[in-house]
Amino acid sequence: MDSLMHFHTDEGFFKRYEKLVIDIVIPYQEKALRDEIEGAEKSHAITNFEMAAQMLESGHCGGEFYGMVFQDSDVAKWLEAVSYSLRIKPDEALSRRADDIISLIGRAQHKDGYLNTYFTVKEPDKRWTNLEEAHELYCAGHMIEAAVAYAACTGKTELLDIMCKMADHMYQHFTCDDTPGFPGHPEVELALIRLYDYTGDSKYLELSKHFIDARGTDFFVQEAERYPWKVWGRNGNNREYAQTTAPVREQTDAVGHAVRAVYLYCGMADVAKATGDASLHNACKTLWNSIVQRRMYLTGAIGSAYEGEAFTKDYHLPSDTAYAETCASIGLIFFAKRMLSLEKRNEYADIMERALYNTVLAGMQLDGKRFFYVNPLEALPGISGEAVTHRHALPQRPTWFACACCPPNVARLLTSIGAYAWSVEENMVYSHLFISGKFAMNDVLGGTISLQTTYPKGNQIHYQFAPVSTAMNLTLAVRLPAWSDSTSITRNGNPAEYEVANGYAYLQGSFTDQDDIVVTLDMSAKRVYSSMKVSANSGKVAFMRGPLVYCAEGNDNADNVIDLVIDQHSPVTEHPEIEHDGMPTLSVGGWHMHDNGKLYSFDSPTSMPCDITLIPYYTWGNRGLHSMRVWMPQT
Amino acid sequence: MDSLMHFHTDEGFFKRYEKLVIDIVIPYQEKALRDEIEGAEKSHAITNFEMAAQMLESGHCGGEFYGMVFQDSDVAKWLEAVSYSLRIKPDEALSRRADDIISLIGRAQHKDGYLNTYFTVKEPDKRWTNLEEAHELYCAGHMIEAAVAYAACTGKTELLDIMCKMADHMYQHFTCDDTPGFPGHPEVELALIRLYDYTGDSKYLELSKHFIDARGTDFFVQEAERYPWKVWGRNGNNREYAQTTAPVREQTDAVGHAVRAVYLYCGMADVAKATGDASLHNACKTLWNSIVQRRMYLTGAIGSAYEGEAFTKDYHLPSDTAYAETCASIGLIFFAKRMLSLEKRNEYADIMERALYNTVLAGMQLDGKRFFYVNPLEALPGISGEAVTHRHALPQRPTWFACACCPPNVARLLTSIGAYAWSVEENMVYSHLFISGKFAMNDVLGGTISLQTTYPKGNQIHYQFAPVSTAMNLTLAVRLPAWSDSTSITRNGNPAEYEVANGYAYLQGSFTDQDDIVVTLDMSAKRVYSSMKVSANSGKVAFMRGPLVYCAEGNDNADNVIDLVIDQHSPVTEHPEIEHDGMPTLSVGGWHMHDNGKLYSFDSPTSMPCDITLIPYYTWGNRGLHSMRVWMPQT
Repeated sequence: MDSLMHFHTDEGFFKRYEKLVIDIVIPYQEKALRDEIEGAEKSHAITNFEMAAQMLESGHCGGEFYGMVFQDSDVAKWLEAVSYSLRIKPDEALSRRADDIISLIGRAQHKDGYLNTYFTVKEPDKRWTNLEEAHELYCAGHMIEAAVAYAACTGKTELLDIMCKMADHMYQHFTCDDTPGFPGHPEVELALIRLYDYTGDSKYLELSKHFIDARGTDFFVQEAERYPWKVWGRNGNNREYAQTTAPVREQTDAVGHAVRAVYLYCGMADVAKATGDASLHNACKTLWNSIVQRRMYLTGAIGSAYEGEAFTKDYHLPSDTAYAETCASIGLIFFAKRMLSLEKRNEYADIMERALYNTVLAGMQLDGKRFFYVNPLEALPGISGEAVTHRHALPQRPTWFACACCPPNVARLLTSIGAYAWSVEENMVYSHLFISGKFAMNDVLGGTISLQTTYPKGNQIHYQFAPVSTAMNLTLAVRLPAWSDSTSITRNGNPAEYEVANGYAYLQGSFTDQDDIVVTLDMSAKRVYSSMKVSANSGKVAFMRGPLVYCAEGNDNADNVIDLVIDQHSPVTEHPEIEHDGMPTLSVGGWHMHDNGKLYSFDSPTSMPCDITLIPYYTWGNRGLHSMRVWMPQT
Repeated sequence: MDSLMHFHTDEGFFKRYEKLVIDIVIPYQEKALRDEIEGAEKSHAITNFEMAAQMLESGHCGGEFYGMVFQDSDVAKWLEAVSYSLRIKPDEALSRRADDIISLIGRAQHKDGYLNTYFTVKEPDKRWTNLEEAHELYCAGHMIEAAVAYAACTGKTELLDIMCKMADHMYQHFTCDDTPGFPGHPEVELALIRLYDYTGDSKYLELSKHFIDARGTDFFVQEAERYPWKVWGRNGNNREYAQTTAPVREQTDAVGHAVRAVYLYCGMADVAKATGDASLHNACKTLWNSIVQRRMYLTGAIGSAYEGEAFTKDYHLPSDTAYAETCASIGLIFFAKRMLSLEKRNEYADIMERALYNTVLAGMQLDGKRFFYVNPLEALPGISGEAVTHRHALPQRPTWFACACCPPNVARLLTSIGAYAWSVEENMVYSHLFISGKFAMNDVLGGTISLQTTYPKGNQIHYQFAPVSTAMNLTLAVRLPAWSDSTSITRNGNPAEYEVANGYAYLQGSFTDQDDIVVTLDMSAKRVYSSMKVSANSGKVAFMRGPLVYCAEGNDNADNVIDLVIDQHSPVTEHPEIEHDGMPTLSVGGWHMHDNGKLYSFDSPTSMPCDITLIPYYTWGNRGLHSMRVWMPQT
């Protein structure tokens, strides 16, 4: 059962984001795809499809392919977000325009099912000869995801038919014809499982498993020797970059391009789930632990280096030069959701929430109009975005990028949040994320569960029930976040009966419309410490309140946060009356340190006591160019 | 007067280094240049000269040029070090081999004076057409320095004649023929001034000034358009890299490749001195301040980024990813010496000393057999030298490199230390660095001053006098290091009479062989703090004793220094009985912090009190692979 289709948000924290995406982000992206935004770098993505269609219809086209080799995927991600958007808020005109684009995509498809405008327009003879760089399987994957989403959300199957034909073509090429290979950028693996789940056609599971199992050879070296053409400069020798160091079941460290890594792990978890493959599940657990125990930022961000947009080494987590790509945290959320489907442990949902409420939300300006790709934990005006080592780590969100991967990824995630918030297994209804809305049961369980909360501002979550008949017989399993020191659950004012396993409270019962389950979390603001092995954080402390990481920003702190030192004895105070995007501001005692103006001095700096103001990390950079810091020295 | 020629070290701290260079480094380098070291990457530098000679003599040669475009400069730097070495310790066999190489160089010189094996062997038609990348002027500069040194130290002028002919050729090409251009890698500017100083021929001053004045246009862009051949990938557009953003007198920030920058500033200071050009002197002061007030590490290292081996932005001084090249600090010492010749201020000599005793000495293994190019202030085994951001920052000194710039630069500096320790202007004798040895006066002043000290271990410096007749009438000007809180000077046990100006004590008098001037410095170990603007150091402290920066290394600290926190109330204790290269070990109270094993935790770490052992930074990395840290959190 796809929980996405059963959930509708109510007014609350996420509703605002959903609206932003539907009203601002998706329309803006459509204009970008159509090259209708003045001053923005050309996308050409729709035009590429038009030219591919012309090419197939007339044998020539009046222009050249333009954009990244994976430009098609921008259209795919937009169509996926549009699917979710149309489910939430029907829009005739948008629906018609999406249908037109889908027709155009159909016209750009070869008779044998092949679909990719780069190859159709620019390199017609080079299909499937540069899997390392050319992103054909990646683009196919995103379009498959869009196809499944569009069919599920609108009931229209034109795009699904197109992509089944493409998937059949890939199945023929890679399994029947026994052509060796696997994608340089994983994505098709998880997409094929979505297609398998939706259509039930086991070919797609088989093909996904094929790509997973094929990985880990020096195929890219052989491919580069056999077909020595390049998109950028491939040679197959950077085996960490695309996670081909070893067969996937033998991989132990999360390495290489962080988005590729987590997309791959998603496919692995999917196949493990679909086939019951324990060795694959174990590999997923090992790689999950590699990430969350040694290679993840406090904000749920991943990727410590700009070069390769990649994981680096254990405990190397620099704050100011982090890559910490928005898309990588989205991929980590995808991975967490799949680990959760394999095994219910609050750890998976806790990380999903951490990445969502911190890195993913930070990726978008509060007005939905600008985006961070890179989400550093420290911003230094004059250095961030300017020093050669910090060119990627901008201190303010820029407008649309030439490589438009993150904004459409944010859009599709935020419009499909129900898929992450809830899941159902037989008569177990799992509530993973606390997002106000109504979750409709399947026909067996019947009725609807309503979740109401002001979370992550408030600490109470209400569950109410609207059974089809008199009562809903089920087990409501509520995540107990590990950050909550004490979580109480009441049923109609009295302590509820429940069992706890792996961080979930299981409330078994018959629930009527008179029932009110209230979960009360301990969301008091707290200090967080990092492992002593993280050199960037030694002697430092950070702050969290519930799932939200906080930071100090120059605006609130005499325009300088780099000179702040936290007083270890000072309590952290909440100021609900001073809101940032509705969340309470925090304050803690400390000092601004003053030096004597010299670069190095034997004079110890003087200290000026002050109240240090902290705001939710995800709201940083919304008030102009200022310094920002998550980890601060404490004395 | 060239103070180098008048100084001989006595037994003491530097004598050991001089011996190491003469007995270990120079012979090893000769073998490397001759490709006689098994397992080491081929140099081919001597062979390149042989092939160039064959080419000129027979019109063809039996091989190909091999190595960097600047491979000739390895031979030049070695010959310069050999010159100084022969002055210190005559060696018939070495002298004969050097003469043979010089003859070979002469045979590789074109009739018109041109000398460069890369162009003679590999690109005979491309002379002077890629000044941006091809290092012709750079190689000429180093060979001119070698020629002057060889002539001064051995009295033999064959190489000097060769290089005068080459300099005359350059003068003809760039000034008489009015060919536009200036070097991509500065060096020839300062070398031409050395040639001018030695020969008195004003053409060489004129040519040096010509290159300085020509700099700061978009010449490299025009050159790349006109002659579009490349060594690496030039296009003239990275104007910061080679300091061509503006005419030199208008440059205000030290930018680009750090070695190129300081070599350029040396040439500027030389020309300012030789011509009395106040605007050029002012530009030097501005650029000096840019470095030492905002862009220099505590160790006197410069260059914050691997990319471009370059300066970055003000106050960006990361410890673990520093480039901090040994050669750049050598260049900073060259620059400081020249600033000192323009104006006597202890600041210049203090920085010279800081760079020398910390970065330059750290560049060489204590046994003289291995070298650091990059001198980070923090080493993290598992990350340093391994993470993609840290590949350059090795945690242990490797053996000989393919690009052999630093070891020969260390060799020529350490064998010519007298040139930096002393200077004379009329009857003023300046003692800048406290290095045991005898400084012979010129004929006018007569006699010899002997400096005896165990510095930088001991804090007393004795000056004694050996007049030619009964007394030496002069002013002894002794640097008062800014790091010494109280410096006393006695003459025969009584307070000496002296005046202080700009950090120098001027002792005017008639000195006999009965006189004993004793300078006593305050060398107590102290905490050092950095500007609050240096984000990498916030909340942290470092330690110095006299000119030496100290660090904590794993060996002495339970194999982990990243978990150490300094107790701000603990005094720093000296342990003269526990020596590192003869220097006292320091200790200070603090704690090893222990976490609960999690990457992030709400549990504050526990602390285990400990004595933290500190060793001189320049001795780090001599005892295997361990963590190392200069800046440590303090609470």
